[in-house]
Formats: sequence, structure tokens, C-alpha cells
Amino acid sequence: MRQFRLGVAGAGKIVRDQHLDAIRATEGLELVASADPHSRLEDVASYASLEEMLDAEPDIDAVAICTPAHLRHRLASQALARGKAVLLEKPPGATLAEVQDLKAQAEKAGLTLFAAWHSRFAPGIAAAAEWLAGRRVEGVDIRWHEDVRVWHPGQAWLWEAGGMGVFDPGINALSIVTALLPDPFFLKRANLVVPANAQTPIAATLEWRTADGVLLSGDFDFRHEDPPCWEMTFVTDGGTLTLEAGGARLIADGRTLIDEPEREYQGVYAHFHSLLEAGQRDMDITPLQQVADALMLGHRQATEAFVDDDGSA
Amino acid sequence: MRQFRLGVAGAGKIVRDQHLDAIRATEGLELVASADPHSRLEDVASYASLEEMLDAEPDIDAVAICTPAHLRHRLASQALARGKAVLLEKPPGATLAEVQDLKAQAEKAGLTLFAAWHSRFAPGIAAAAEWLAGRRVEGVDIRWHEDVRVWHPGQAWLWEAGGMGVFDPGINALSIVTALLPDPFFLKRANLVVPANAQTPIAATLEWRTADGVLLSGDFDFRHEDPPCWEMTFVTDGGTLTLEAGGARLIADGRTLIDEPEREYQGVYAHFHSLLEAGQRDMDITPLQQVADALMLGHRQATEAFVDDDGSA
Repeated sequence: MRQFRLGVAGAGKIVRDQHLDAIRATEGLELVASADPHSRLEDVASYASLEEMLDAEPDIDAVAICTPAHLRHRLASQALARGKAVLLEKPPGATLAEVQDLKAQAEKAGLTLFAAWHSRFAPGIAAAAEWLAGRRVEGVDIRWHEDVRVWHPGQAWLWEAGGMGVFDPGINALSIVTALLPDPFFLKRANLVVPANAQTPIAATLEWRTADGVLLSGDFDFRHEDPPCWEMTFVTDGGTLTLEAGGARLIADGRTLIDEPEREYQGVYAHFHSLLEAGQRDMDITPLQQVADALMLGHRQATEAFVDDDGSA
Repeated sequence: MRQFRLGVAGAGKIVRDQHLDAIRATEGLELVASADPHSRLEDVASYASLEEMLDAEPDIDAVAICTPAHLRHRLASQALARGKAVLLEKPPGATLAEVQDLKAQAEKAGLTLFAAWHSRFAPGIAAAAEWLAGRRVEGVDIRWHEDVRVWHPGQAWLWEAGGMGVFDPGINALSIVTALLPDPFFLKRANLVVPANAQTPIAATLEWRTADGVLLSGDFDFRHEDPPCWEMTFVTDGGTLTLEAGGARLIADGRTLIDEPEREYQGVYAHFHSLLEAGQRDMDITPLQQVADALMLGHRQATEAFVDDDGSA
């Protein structure tokens, strides 16, 4: 197994909560450095910027970009320009123009680029794909509900333009459906419920159709009492499949096939390693396109102002 | 010169105003039929649906899809499935998912597909590209102002979700800039002014940057007294270039290089003919991506309700 030396750009909460353990658990990957102007990691060389890190550690093979989304394009471009492979946390950029450009850069340079939609690596997803493979999907129903005060406390950026609101978690559901459905699907209508003091939806209902007319419905809601409901159901000509707990639990016709603890990021890094070994890319931007379509086509309906638990609005 | 037999799907105002004369003026193209459930064209066989048209006229080589945007994906898919080349009026679909899918279908089938951004064929555009080729662009300023009551009377769909508002004409400006600038550019901020009774902006100001930091600014406004101002200026290291009248007039450092009557659709069909002869595709979706980015990232600011001249809101 080939060994690859990894640096992370951004050393914030998601890196500490998820990436560090997942990288350590992945054979063939070694974390050697981090770059963050505000935060240092223990046990690895820490630099204040990506440029410093790449200057000081020329042997780095790949960089995981885990900064806020609006910084990803600039940093990923820097890494690609220096011949490094790149993993992008989700979403892979702030705009479609950015992610298309990164894709074009990586293709031109022949470098590995991976848009890491972590929910695609939930324990039940691979088995769901297998189960669905022999069946014809006749309908999909997505329910993605959580309490924003519990899961995103104080994240005021969620409510600002570009923050995506309920689509910040909702894009995880879309990343699963786009991976599991063999056919593309097209937004037909969307209703976006937007707090009077916010720019982004606190809830959304959506309807898509495949070219064959199969209906997909989505219900995304931040106003949900804990525990969260991250579920979707596939109705097929050969039974009904339900993913629960964000994909950690898989139930076919009432029978539980998978029920495992969440370990999505191990799957992310195992896949990244296989892309690095094969010199391949996996830069699927369809989940972000679906969110853009929802925000472009959705009908906005005002609702009461949102006030976070800390009193911020 | 090879001859191609053409059908049009949709026989509404844009077809009568622009497409018919342009097709007639294009050597190598012959309009043989139209498909529209509500409207018949003189001098060509008229059918109520695309399917009827293609059944009755199996020799048709290509179909121009000139229906409202939300019908384009279905009709273009039908035409491609029957082996026909396709021209799409702008915008090429209602959603990004639709246009990506059409692109994929055409590539798979090896068929010609043309997203016809008509403003790219304004008289001054080719000369502008030539003039810019030897120079470094240091800034771009877009001013796209028109009186919506004069140019879009009674078009209530403009104000509904998906209607794009001021980006309906604004996408023409974006189609020019994306064609003329060699480098991609990325939205950094956008302010969208949305009437209290509308879903879409009546005005918008935007700022983009290229990877090299070149600033592009855009000012789109529907609240402009006639005559319209459809202009953009490129500041370069070798002088200043201005496109006026939507690209019909080209001025370099104060000297008028081009000032010709509008004949965009002749350029559209001449290009379509060359694509048909070469068996090539031209399915650039960057203008629609830029609009989606603006609607995804833009900060919405409410303004007074819009009332059309006929009293409708």
C-alpha cells in the first residue's frame, strides 16, 4: 500500500472532531502538518498559512481543505498549483463558478481532487446502493429535520446570504440521494420559509422529478425538537428501503440490515487514499447544483424572526 | 455547403420576431416545420407537438427549442432521443440539473447541442475579442439598465420564483463577459433589490474577482427610463474598450470601431450551421451558473412593491 503525506488547511472544530481520528485510522495516510492562522494542532508541525506549510514541508502529497467554504477556492488553487492532491470539505466552494474552476484546474494538471460529501460514507449507504441496484425506484421521500439551536448554536453565518440556512445540513441528504439514484432528477417546485431577520431558509419543502416522472419530495426543517430526524425512504417495485440516522441505519421492508455507529470520515479518507493511489478525481458537484437550483427556483415565504438561544438574531 | 432541415418547437413572439428571418438569411438551413399547441406559422408545416412534428417529418435534422424555459429539458430530451441536433434559446433550461443533463445526453449520443446565448453574436463582440486578445484586462464594469415596463410589459412570470427578474436581461451581459474574458471570475458579493410583492430582483449590484484579483462590477436595473443602457467597459493595460447598445457599438479609447444594426440571431444560426457541419457541441452553461451564484449568494433587500402599467403586480 502506497503511503501519502497529508497536510490540513484549517485546524478548526471539524478537523479536531472528525478529520484527525479518521486520518489516523486510515492506512497509507500520515498527517504531517497543519496550516491555520488562528489554531495549532498538537503532534504535527503547525504553520500559519498554507504557503508556509508547503514551503516548509515539500514532501506533502495532498492537502485537505477544511476552512470555511469561502476560502476553499483560493487555498485549493494554491495547493493544485504546487502539484498537490486536494480533498475539499463540503461544500466544495462558495459558488458554482469556484467549484467548476477547481475541477478544470485539477483535470488540466492531472491531479487528484476529491469533493468529500461525508454523508455518502455513512455506514448504510453502500448496502443501500446494493439493495437498490436490482430494483426500480418509484418514489423517494426525504425528511431532514433537526433543532438548529442544538446542532448549530451561535452559527450566525448560517443566516447570512450564502450561508444556505437549512440546506447546510440538507445538502448532506442531497449528497446521498444523488449518489444512490441512478437517474438525474430535476427541481419542479420549492417553498423556502425564511425568517424575517434572515437571508436563508429555516425550512424548505421541495419536489423533484426524474425524466421518467418519478417523484422525489424533500422536507428540510431546522425547527425540530431534538433528537434529529435524518431519514429518507425509497419506494421501489421490490419493497421499501429506509435510511435513518443520516445513513447509519438501513431498514428494508421493516428488517434492519445495518445499524452501526457513525464513522463517515473514515470512509472519506479510505476513498481519498484509493483516489490518490489510482491518480483519479471524484469531484461531483451535483449536490451544490441542487441547492443552487432550490435557491434560484424556490418561492420564498417570510416567517417570524429567528432568535438563537444566546439571544443573537 | 451542407444543407440541414430545421424544425422549431415553440412558435411564439421570439420565433416570429427573430428566428424566422435569421433562419431564412442563413445559407445551409431550411425551416420545414413548427410545433406549438397554440400557434401556427405560415409557409411551413405546423404541428401541435414536437412528437407529431418528428413523426410527420422524419427528415428533420435539427430542432430549435424556443418554448418557455421550463419546457426545454423535456422537448430537447425528446429531440436528442430521436437523433436530432438541438439549439436551445436562452436560458438553456430552468435549472442547472436540466442543462447538465442535456449536455450529458448530447455527449453520450454524439449529437450537436447549442446553448444559444444570442448576445454573444452582437455586431461588436468578435471585434471586442480581437481587441482584448493582446491586452491584459484590469477591470470590467457592467451597466445593464432598462425600463421593465417598456421591455417586459405584462410579463408577470419575471417576478415569480424562477423568473430571474432583472437577471432575465442581465444574463445577456453575463453571456458576453464570460465569452470575452479569458479567465473565470467568482462572485464575491451581490445585493439584490426585491420588490415587496415579487420573488425576484428588480435591481442588483454585484462584484466578482478573477483568481488574479481583477475586479468586475455589475449594475443591473429594471427601474431605468428609456432608452436602455446596455453597456460594459473593459479597462486594460492598453486602453479602454466599451461595448454599447448591447454589443452593437464598440468604442476603443473614444474611437468608434463598430456601430451596426443588431443582427444577433443571424450570428446564432450561422454558428449553429457550423456546429452542425462539424458535428460539434457548444453548451456553455457559465452564464446560468453565474445567475445561480448571484441568487444563492446575494443579499436580498426589500423595496416597494412593483406595479406594472396595466395595474398588475
